[in-house]
Formats: sequence, structure tokens, C-alpha cells
Amino acid sequence: MLKDFAKAAKPEKEEVKARIKSAQAQLAAYQMQIKEAKLPVMVIFEGWEAAGKGGVISRVIKDMDPRFFSVASMDAPPTDVDRRMPFLYRYMVEIPEAGKFKFFDTFWMEAVTNGLFSGELSPQKYEKRIDDINTTERQLVDNGYCVMKFFFHISKKEQKERMDALRANKDTKWRVRKEDLWENEHYDQCLDVYDRYLKDTNRSSAPWYIIDAKDRNWAALQVLEFLNKGIETALKNRGVAAPILQNVFPLRKTPLLSEISFEGKTLTDEEYKAQLKELQAKLHELHNVIYHKKIPVIIAYEGWDAAGKGGNIKRIADALDPRGYIVHPIASPEPHEKARHFLWRFWTRLPKTGHVAIFDRTWYGRVMVERLEGFCSENDWQRAYNEMNEFEKELADEGAVVIKFWVHIDSDTQLARFTDRQNTPEKQWKITDEDWRNREKWDLYEEAINEMLQKTNTTFAPWHVLESVDKKYARIKALKIVIEAIEKACGK
Amino acid sequence: MLKDFAKAAKPEKEEVKARIKSAQAQLAAYQMQIKEAKLPVMVIFEGWEAAGKGGVISRVIKDMDPRFFSVASMDAPPTDVDRRMPFLYRYMVEIPEAGKFKFFDTFWMEAVTNGLFSGELSPQKYEKRIDDINTTERQLVDNGYCVMKFFFHISKKEQKERMDALRANKDTKWRVRKEDLWENEHYDQCLDVYDRYLKDTNRSSAPWYIIDAKDRNWAALQVLEFLNKGIETALKNRGVAAPILQNVFPLRKTPLLSEISFEGKTLTDEEYKAQLKELQAKLHELHNVIYHKKIPVIIAYEGWDAAGKGGNIKRIADALDPRGYIVHPIASPEPHEKARHFLWRFWTRLPKTGHVAIFDRTWYGRVMVERLEGFCSENDWQRAYNEMNEFEKELADEGAVVIKFWVHIDSDTQLARFTDRQNTPEKQWKITDEDWRNREKWDLYEEAINEMLQKTNTTFAPWHVLESVDKKYARIKALKIVIEAIEKACGK
Repeated sequence: MLKDFAKAAKPEKEEVKARIKSAQAQLAAYQMQIKEAKLPVMVIFEGWEAAGKGGVISRVIKDMDPRFFSVASMDAPPTDVDRRMPFLYRYMVEIPEAGKFKFFDTFWMEAVTNGLFSGELSPQKYEKRIDDINTTERQLVDNGYCVMKFFFHISKKEQKERMDALRANKDTKWRVRKEDLWENEHYDQCLDVYDRYLKDTNRSSAPWYIIDAKDRNWAALQVLEFLNKGIETALKNRGVAAPILQNVFPLRKTPLLSEISFEGKTLTDEEYKAQLKELQAKLHELHNVIYHKKIPVIIAYEGWDAAGKGGNIKRIADALDPRGYIVHPIASPEPHEKARHFLWRFWTRLPKTGHVAIFDRTWYGRVMVERLEGFCSENDWQRAYNEMNEFEKELADEGAVVIKFWVHIDSDTQLARFTDRQNTPEKQWKITDEDWRNREKWDLYEEAINEMLQKTNTTFAPWHVLESVDKKYARIKALKIVIEAIEKACGK
Repeated sequence: MLKDFAKAAKPEKEEVKARIKSAQAQLAAYQMQIKEAKLPVMVIFEGWEAAGKGGVISRVIKDMDPRFFSVASMDAPPTDVDRRMPFLYRYMVEIPEAGKFKFFDTFWMEAVTNGLFSGELSPQKYEKRIDDINTTERQLVDNGYCVMKFFFHISKKEQKERMDALRANKDTKWRVRKEDLWENEHYDQCLDVYDRYLKDTNRSSAPWYIIDAKDRNWAALQVLEFLNKGIETALKNRGVAAPILQNVFPLRKTPLLSEISFEGKTLTDEEYKAQLKELQAKLHELHNVIYHKKIPVIIAYEGWDAAGKGGNIKRIADALDPRGYIVHPIASPEPHEKARHFLWRFWTRLPKTGHVAIFDRTWYGRVMVERLEGFCSENDWQRAYNEMNEFEKELADEGAVVIKFWVHIDSDTQLARFTDRQNTPEKQWKITDEDWRNREKWDLYEEAINEMLQKTNTTFAPWHVLESVDKKYARIKALKIVIEAIEKACGK
């Protein structure tokens, strides 16, 4: 792409200036429109060092209101925390909220190409990164993001001249880093790598725009005009349904909820106590091992109201060192969460390596409560199965143990527990009108849950049904599953 | 304190066990009460290495519901980001929300005492840290936090035995770090330092409890019983007014709003354009200097509706490299923000060293809109002047440039601008019913603003009134003030 890049003819200086002015005004006018349309706009700048990204960003935002945009500089090396998280983490936490612009001074491209230069990224790992990036850019666009990507292109000679000029001035000398000089010296090698990356990540949902960056005003104009065009298209396409992709992940066979029997799935108090003690001791030991081996563990709980999620979580948590786990109770999203990709609030809650995150309700709310209550569009929740599989695949590929529990009871058991809660003063806080309303929709939920289990029961992030009419049975089963999964990850 | 510590008599083993059980049940019962009372509870564990903090935390949370508490391990070294922030930052971002427990495995004590051991902390700096910590603990308590601090005490001999035991086992050997061994070898020196720290930070709002930690069960019982007692007291004292402290900060003389004249405070278009260009170029250059010198800059904007805050901010922002500043528009707090100390959402938005953060409305909402609309208690806003001065003092002491602008117009000018907005289709989004309602309270606001300016116009974080009937004049004045403050900080 970069090698074949044919420069467009540069207009006269005065024309460039005039068109910049009008494009800036147009962009400023779009601010209110994207606010009203709740469109989040990501503008990604990549390119050669000293190609003038910073100066162009300044020109692009010239007429914009600072309340509607922000700029994130991502070209610093990853922080200690970033390094203990999946590759995508440091980028995903930065995505803008609906109705705002965010300009990125380098994004995931730089991390990947630097990885190739340093040899840290093997060819297989490179392929994986490309997949991650394409997947995520597609997900963002499908979820309503406008993603514009610009690559700033200058020649080897031009780059050298600019760096020489910076180095000649004592006030700007420090801005030229060793890596920048290296890039110029290895320009042709870098060109190959950049060219390949651009090709590999050039998709119609988030295509690349190569910017001829020799002249700074002309570069700004190209960016502004492409950007305005992109926003115009995104505004027109607001609310358009995205394709529902076919499943490509290995699925396990899953029974329907109606096929699950509770028969014989009970334990006596003695059996329970003895097994609980033994299993908790084992899990406690394993927690040390995953801490030491830096394996992150994600345990996701879903289940019927009053199925016993809380008590079940408690038995897992009790076995863990409290400094190495966290329980995230998931309620309805707050405004800043609702304004972003629905997985954002889970990206921001991922465990560091060696830590355990337990989710008390999860991202699967998308295909249960959000689906049934109409909190998202049909297209949104239908797409979500694949999006959640992709999310979990990323976590698993980065070395996380991902375990999903459906805590299951039958309708009669729920009624008995609701009634008990209602009639027991200390338990009344556990039961709300909403619980009773949800109960009326049992059949609709059952249908949604069956579909969810069928479509997201992947080999790398499997669902486990915990039969919880006898809570003791469900707790022991959960402990065994967690232990087995961790042992497997530790190579035991 | 630590040296004079007289151990209480340890009860019989069986009694300890029985009392632990009942204290655990009591703590569990408090969970719902603190949730209902919206009490945030911080439990801080400090102490000798290998004193058994982790094991006691496990026992303390034994009967607790994981949805009501979390544990933060703070004994890792500060991250790259932490190191570019004020000392208190990494702690303040971790404070719990109302109605929840948070257990801290070490907190700011460890950072301070380690600093003394390593020699990084000079005696003057030590005094400053102690002041910061006492101030902040008091602020937290005044703002409704229950803060419980435990120091785990064991003898040199006991510590050595425990470490030897850990090192003798190949599975636990890695848990004893070099620093831990150092502590044991220098036990007496450490004792002096810990003793002094405990004395220096032992205030009645957040007193220390020294825990005899030789026996693990007995240690857990002491913690549980002190904790329950502390919560009982905090629940009783819910809503009690805290003392309004006398101002101890150097204040600058401040005119009343009514004394501010707009006469002659105008610029012609030509004057404006010429000065704007020159000043923005100068500020642009200075931005490089502060980036290079790692000086953080905080610019806080308050002002009447329609006074021209947005356009003023824009003229500052335009002069800056977009990768080095951020504008934070401050609206009413979201639920997770409202559930914490009112300054929390500003702590989390502080600029890194070398960066500029511009706040479009600020923490001063506490003594304006929150005061007038009754969103906080009278005691809350009356205390807030001092709390905000303390906050800004901390920022300034850590090297930040703090500039506060009051963008000022008279009532007639506001009316004219409101009317213009109402009548101009492209400007209508800028005017809401709330603006008109606020306008009716002009006199009450004026009173509140006068009080705010008088009480928080400190030498280290001064207020500057920007006369903005002529917006051009106000913009030029703002630029000059920012430039002057930065030049001073850079030693120019």
C-alpha cells in the first residue's frame, strides 16, 4: 500500500489555506451533530517519526471546542500495569464516549511494528495481533464508533532533513530520540513493515488513509477532508444494522435448561463440610501458584435470581488470599459506561496477571436483561454473542483462565426462596419488586439463556451449569471446576 | 507508642475462638447497616513483615459478602504513572465508595517509612508527608469516612522465626524478599521509625490500634473487636457536624465582585489579534519547557453562565500542543463519583508531570451550586473552603502550577447574551432552562462567590478575575496570567 502510494496533486498554497479554513469550519459544525447523534469518533494518527503528526493535530482541532474532544498520546512505552494486562487493554480503556472526538497520537500499530523491529514479536504472534486489531476495529465500528486511521508518509530524505534541523537547535535537540534515528537509518526495512501492516489492517469498516506529509498545510488539509467525509458517512449510517457474523469458534455441546435434572444432585451436611474444607485448601494453594506463575483468572457468574450466586461466590472467595482477588458486582451501567462500547466496563475491570476477578453478573447482561428490556437494539444483542466470544478468546489467548457459571434452579425453587426472603426480616433487602417482575418473564429469560449458552459455550471459555436447588452441591461443583481449570493452566 | 505498648492479656484459646465467631457475625450484620447509612469504611493494615496481615484479613472478612468489600494491596512499588503524580494520588484514587468496606494491605505509612530507610525522604520532606497524611485522614473522616488503622506488632525473634520457616519450604521461599530480611536485621532502627510515625499520625479522628500479632487468632480477634467498635461509633456519629477549621493559609487581598469595574477593560480587534498571536506563540514555547522540566499545570475555570469560559479556554488550549493538555468539562457527579469524597473526581483527573489540565468548572461547585441547591449539608460546604485550600496546597507543594480564573460579567451583559443565544438557532444548545433559573439566583450566587473568593484566594493557588464584558480583553488577560505563572515556575 505504502509502496504503491500515488500522491494526489497538491493544490496551490492559497487554495490549500482556503480549503483548510472551510474544512475546519465544517468539522466544528459537526461537533454538535455528533453530540446529538451520540457518535463517538476515534481519529488515529500513525506514521514516520518527525512526519508532523502533532502539528497537524493542532490544525485539525483549530476550530473545535475543547469540551468535545481530547487527545491521547499513546507512544510512551506501556506502563507496569499495561504490561500485566492483555495487549488490547491499554487501548480499550482509552476509547472515547459517545458524542465526543478522541485523537490518538499513535495507537496499536506502533506497538506491533516496534515489536517486529525489536524481534519481540514472532511471526505467529504478529498474525495474532493483526487478528486482534482487525477484530476490535470491526467491533468498535459495529458498535457505532467512527474510526478514522491516518498514516503520515514522508521520504527518507525529508525525514533526515527534519531530524537534522531539530538536532541543530539546542531547544529541540532532545526531541529526537535514538529510535527515531534508527528508523531513518533503516528506512527501507521499516517501509516494508509499515506497508505490510497497513495492508493487513486495511478493512472497509476502518480503512487507512495515507497522508502525503511533506507539506504541513497540505497534510492537514488531506486529514481534514478525509475526516469530514468519514464523519458525514458515519452520521448517515447511524443506527444501520451491522452484519451478524457466523460463528467461527469451537463450541461445546450444551443441553437446554429444560434438560437439566436436579435429581441426585445433593450433598449431606457432612459430605459438604468435608469436601468444602479439602477443596478450599487446595484452591488456596493453587492461588499461590497462579500468583507466582502470573496467570490471571476470570470467573463469571450468571444465574437466576435467588439461585445462590452470592453464597457460591463466597465459597470460592473464602479460599483465596484477599489481596489477590476482587469481586465485581455488576449493576446497570453508569452514564459514562453506557456511553461506550458495552464491553468497556469489563475491559477496565480485568485482573492483572496472577490475580483473580470474580464477576457477579457479567457482560452477558447484553443478551439477557438488555435484550428483554429493550436496552439495546436487536442488532446489538444478536451481534453480541460473537463479540463476547471474541472478547473471551482474547483473554484466553493472552493466558487467562476464563470460567463461566450458570447458577441454575427451577421456577418452584425460586418461588420458595422469594417467599422466604419476603417473610424473613433480615433477608428482605435481598428481594425487590424488580425480582418479582423478572420472575414473570421466566419463559422469555429461559429462551434467551438457552440461546446464550448454545452460542457462547466455547472450548476456551466454557459455561458450566451449577445445579443449585441444593446450594451445597452447587458450591462443591463450582470449587471442583475452578480447581480443575487452574490446574490445567498450571500444567498440573 | 510502639515502644511503650503494653499487651493486653490474651484470653484462653477457646474463648478467643468463640469471640472471633461472634465478632465475625457482628461485622457481617454491620454490612447492611453501613450500606443503608452510606458509610464508607477504610481499614488500613500496616506492620512488620511476616506479622500475618494477610491471614488476619482472611479471618476478618470470613462472614462478609464479597459484594460489600474489596481488598487493595498497596505494598507494590509505585507505578510509572504514580511517580508522575502527587504523593497522595495513588492512595486517593483507591478510596472506597459510600456503603462499602475497603481493606488496605499497607497504605501511605509504608511509603513514608521506606523513604526514611532508603534516605530518599529528607527530614523536612518527612514532616510534609506527615502533614499531608494527617490532613487527608482528617478530611476523609470529616467527609463521613470511617478510617480504622491497625499496626501489626511482633518481636524481632518472632519475625525471624517466621521468615526462617517460610524460607525452609521451597513453595514459600519466594515470599521472603530481601527487604524483609533487611527489616529483621535492622529491627531496632525500624522500631524507632515506626514508633515515631505512629506517634506523629495518631489523631483522634483516625487513631492507631496496635495489634499484638504473635498469635494469629488473637490478632484477628483484636482487629475484629476494635473494628466493630469503630463502626458502631461511626454509625452513631453519622451526620454529625465536623469543626470548621480556622484558615491557616496565606491569603491575598480580594475585592468584592461589586467593586470590580469593567471600565476601560476592552481591546480593539487589532490590539487583540496582535497580542493574541504573540502571547500564544510564547505560551506554545513554554509548553515545551514545562514538558521538558516535568512541571504539571492546573488551570481552573469558574464564572457566570455566558461569561465566555469556553472561548477563553479555547484561546489557552490553542496555544498548547494537543498531546500535552486535556480539558475536563465538569458536570454534576455520576453515582460512583457522588459516592466518594467530593474531591475524588478531581484527584482522578490530575495532570501528569509536564502536562496541563484545564478544568471547565471545578471543585468549587461545592461552595456554589451544591451550597445553593442544597446538594450537600451546610457543614459540608462550610468545611470545603479549607479542604479545597488543603487540596491545592498539596498540588502546589508537589510542584504544580495552580491558576484559578473567575470569568466575570455583570447581570445586564448576561441577559443580553442569554437573549442572543435564545434568538440564534446555532447557539440555542448553549442555553437551557437551568441557566434562566440560575440567573434568578444572581444575588445568592454573588454572595457565595464573594465568600469563595475571599476564603480561597491563597498565594499558592490564587484567583484571578477576568473581566469578560469584552471577551477579547479577558482572553488576553488570561493568557498573560498563565504565561507569567509558568515563567515563574520555570525560574524565568
